Amino acid sequence: MSEVIIGVDLGGTNVKTAIVSRDKKVLAKDSRPTNAEGGPEAVMNVMEQSVRELTASQGINLKDVLAVGFGAPGPMNWQTGIVYSPPNLPGWTNVPLAKLMKKRLGVRCFVDNDANVACYGEYWLGAGQGTENMAVLTLGTGVGGGVVVFGKLLRGIDGTAAELGHLKVQRDGRMCGCGSRGCLEAYASVTGMVRTAKEGFEQGKESSLKTLCGGNLDKITGRMIYEAAKEGDAFAQWVFNETATWLGLGIASIVNFLNPEKVVLCGGMIAAGDMLFNPVRETMLANTFEVPGKRCQIVPAGLGEDSGVIGCAGCALARYQAE
Amino acid sequence: MSEVIIGVDLGGTNVKTAIVSRDKKVLAKDSRPTNAEGGPEAVMNVMEQSVRELTASQGINLKDVLAVGFGAPGPMNWQTGIVYSPPNLPGWTNVPLAKLMKKRLGVRCFVDNDANVACYGEYWLGAGQGTENMAVLTLGTGVGGGVVVFGKLLRGIDGTAAELGHLKVQRDGRMCGCGSRGCLEAYASVTGMVRTAKEGFEQGKESSLKTLCGGNLDKITGRMIYEAAKEGDAFAQWVFNETATWLGLGIASIVNFLNPEKVVLCGGMIAAGDMLFNPVRETMLANTFEVPGKRCQIVPAGLGEDSGVIGCAGCALARYQAE
Repeated sequence: MSEVIIGVDLGGTNVKTAIVSRDKKVLAKDSRPTNAEGGPEAVMNVMEQSVRELTASQGINLKDVLAVGFGAPGPMNWQTGIVYSPPNLPGWTNVPLAKLMKKRLGVRCFVDNDANVACYGEYWLGAGQGTENMAVLTLGTGVGGGVVVFGKLLRGIDGTAAELGHLKVQRDGRMCGCGSRGCLEAYASVTGMVRTAKEGFEQGKESSLKTLCGGNLDKITGRMIYEAAKEGDAFAQWVFNETATWLGLGIASIVNFLNPEKVVLCGGMIAAGDMLFNPVRETMLANTFEVPGKRCQIVPAGLGEDSGVIGCAGCALARYQAE
Repeated sequence: MSEVIIGVDLGGTNVKTAIVSRDKKVLAKDSRPTNAEGGPEAVMNVMEQSVRELTASQGINLKDVLAVGFGAPGPMNWQTGIVYSPPNLPGWTNVPLAKLMKKRLGVRCFVDNDANVACYGEYWLGAGQGTENMAVLTLGTGVGGGVVVFGKLLRGIDGTAAELGHLKVQRDGRMCGCGSRGCLEAYASVTGMVRTAKEGFEQGKESSLKTLCGGNLDKITGRMIYEAAKEGDAFAQWVFNETATWLGLGIASIVNFLNPEKVVLCGGMIAAGDMLFNPVRETMLANTFEVPGKRCQIVPAGLGEDSGVIGCAGCALARYQAE
């Protein structure tokens, strides 16, 4: 059996695992519940089992695995492989994930930030293939970011670079989860979009959304806003457009900063297609210099929901080769 | 004579020239009027003469010059060495500067963007020495930007990267010279600071500035605002603080994006010292994550007004060595 790399994307809900060959072929995939409430040991059991079962199912011996790459939620240290205390992994405090998983599997283990691995996945095998400079934004509860320059992940001196969700788009703007105000994430995440809707209702706006959420505004979801907008609800369309405008402004900053070939968007929100991408592109173009603005393509993830797990493998291979 | 590199910083007012040895010693410097109104030929005459006279004065033969690096105002193409049509160089349209100067001097010539060379100068021999990731902001009529990552200038796919003056800090904010709204430059340049003062006066504010400018608000300069603020004028202090706050917000975006060791500020405004740097640092810290915020030092240029000309030589050496 030729040598392979394994990616393990550790999310709050699911653990995804993939085996990738050195020539970039995805050989097998697995997804199973994280069992996050069980704490670190339980979660590591899930990951170990997933890796063992998936390799066994392919007749691959762990000795033939070059490296295992883990994508974990931050804050974390990619160099030591220690995961500090992610909000969605209860009980995790300074867990030396790389070291513990190496002990369990007997294979070299690397740990990276989840948005960085998603970016690397898109760069390596997804929509960013062939670029030298690109950025990824993951649109979910928050807005995660990853950046590739000179064909490498931009990490910064402490490994905290590419926090693109925390570019400032408004002075004294909305309070953000990070503790400061006016971050892109506070407007362009799914949470930010729902907040825009709620603020609209507080101003007395009417919309079919009120029926969709059964009269309980706390139950409004991104999907509901999308559905209502698609059905022609003017208020929901306005909410969507507002969100896209903020996102386009943030991307304009990224384009003027980076002059990238592509900005790749990930996350459930991208299912909205043109309704999202058109106003995003329009706002970006209106707020950038002509050359970088026209150059940069804003595109949906090429690997769908697998950017992260494939990027885990890609990152691990790059780090293995750099050692 | 050992081999040397020459830097030529082409500004709208002055041409600065420096001879630098391979071991980073500045051997000689020259500054003379650009004669910009004479058009491209006249300006190139000035540059040629400066290089010839300065090398002759040091007993250096042009054959012993490895390369000459030019810093020119954008827009331009660093790879072809063509300068398009800088606003402050009348008569310049698509001038193949690298080619023409090579013909005149018989030495390999490289052309780079003026903010990029200032950044590289600070990285190579100034306040950014020893870093791997840093940014420079040049505060003047506009706000120029330069970024070093992985020890190299960040250029992007078309060479337009690091336009840090055009990070968006306010949706639907002030009109900027670039044609869009809410750019950092519209608030944090000297021009932006003067505009903040004028807008204050339009709201009926009182200040000793009115006397300083002889009652003609169009004559207010950055220096006047600084002088008045230093003398305790509350309005001038407010103007200065506003400018510093916007600058700190822009730097916060840079810090969350880049996780740099340093952000270096260049330009006359940095003479204000703590009055500028203290509120800038405070705003940056309040708007970044703890690790990158505490890591990043915001410091004045180490090479004073010579960041550009020394960076011209440094860039040329780096490009010569990469060929």
